[in-house]
Amino acid sequence: MHVFDPGGDRFFMVLSAGNLATTQALVHRLRSDIMRKDQRDSLATVDYMFDAAEYVGRTSRKIQNRYEQINEGNEGRFDARFIIGGQIRGQDPQLYLIYPEGNIIEVPDATPFLQIGENKYGKPILDRIIDTDTSLEDAARCALLSLDSTMRSNVAVGPPVELSIYPAGSFELAHRLSYEVDSPLYAEVHRSWSDTLRGGIHALPRFDWEP
Amino acid sequence: MHVFDPGGDRFFMVLSAGNLATTQALVHRLRSDIMRKDQRDSLATVDYMFDAAEYVGRTSRKIQNRYEQINEGNEGRFDARFIIGGQIRGQDPQLYLIYPEGNIIEVPDATPFLQIGENKYGKPILDRIIDTDTSLEDAARCALLSLDSTMRSNVAVGPPVELSIYPAGSFELAHRLSYEVDSPLYAEVHRSWSDTLRGGIHALPRFDWEP
Repeated sequence: MHVFDPGGDRFFMVLSAGNLATTQALVHRLRSDIMRKDQRDSLATVDYMFDAAEYVGRTSRKIQNRYEQINEGNEGRFDARFIIGGQIRGQDPQLYLIYPEGNIIEVPDATPFLQIGENKYGKPILDRIIDTDTSLEDAARCALLSLDSTMRSNVAVGPPVELSIYPAGSFELAHRLSYEVDSPLYAEVHRSWSDTLRGGIHALPRFDWEP
Repeated sequence: MHVFDPGGDRFFMVLSAGNLATTQALVHRLRSDIMRKDQRDSLATVDYMFDAAEYVGRTSRKIQNRYEQINEGNEGRFDARFIIGGQIRGQDPQLYLIYPEGNIIEVPDATPFLQIGENKYGKPILDRIIDTDTSLEDAARCALLSLDSTMRSNVAVGPPVELSIYPAGSFELAHRLSYEVDSPLYAEVHRSWSDTLRGGIHALPRFDWEP
């Protein structure tokens, strides 16, 4: 979870999944582009969130191309995906997913969330709960459950679980948290949800042959 | 869901996912092998469930090889996975997953379920609920929830949802059901579970900045 705060009129957060060398090179490049005042494209200079996302996609693609060219036959091996969220003053906050190919999609209206990485195990809870009326805190709890399900179903996914909350128009994070499995709130979320599901199973309708 | 009942001392059920032509050819072959009395290997003649699963794997591999040989460069295109469950008299019931490569794994003791096809969306609910103490009916309800989550998160997965229950030692299915989304029991499972999850979200612990 990488925060970019290049000036009071804009705020960005970038999440990454995939090849770690590619993601670290990208973050380094985004930061150094902000520092270079002669730089045409950077998070400090883009006019729209859409442009910010396309710039990240272009930069990611350049990094991958560089390593693919010196590793013939390894196309796709340096893949990474990113999510960029943020806001530029005078505009609504936005959230984009950036594919390894460098192209981008906006967060869907009907399912207002994006995922990267090991995303399938944790998607059903988001699909069932998150809509545009969900509070930021309920959405945050849902995100914790989504990752809890993912970690339980794929032991290769592990803590820490990082969580940030950005209220629209604030141009700063309201909260930035990191949980281990035994962190009190995280452990309580896990326990509470297990109770909910076990109770929910018993509330389901009986088959017609059951007493 | 294909039932094989080649005699009173044995009972098998085969599930399939993947290339439909491969799975249909396999089912045809399993049935015709039972009819051919000169056939060395068939579900009618195997001594153990393990042998039944290996025979299915071998037969699946032969079918795939045949189509791969006349479609050079298309290795993997005719892939299919299978689950075989059943019982041979005098032995415990068994459940095996058969990979496209023809090799097999037994159902794990700690997580006593197997999945094929679009399996990730529906795995967390199984991971959280199913253990060796779960009743057949609770396990069946859990399987319906697992597929309900999958259909919701991937619109390419659709009804009918087929469900069978085999009690150990019975050598016949106790129940065989097929649900559409608007079947009363299925619709009620869906509605009840949505209520459970929405209630569960509100039962989760608050963040320390919340009232």
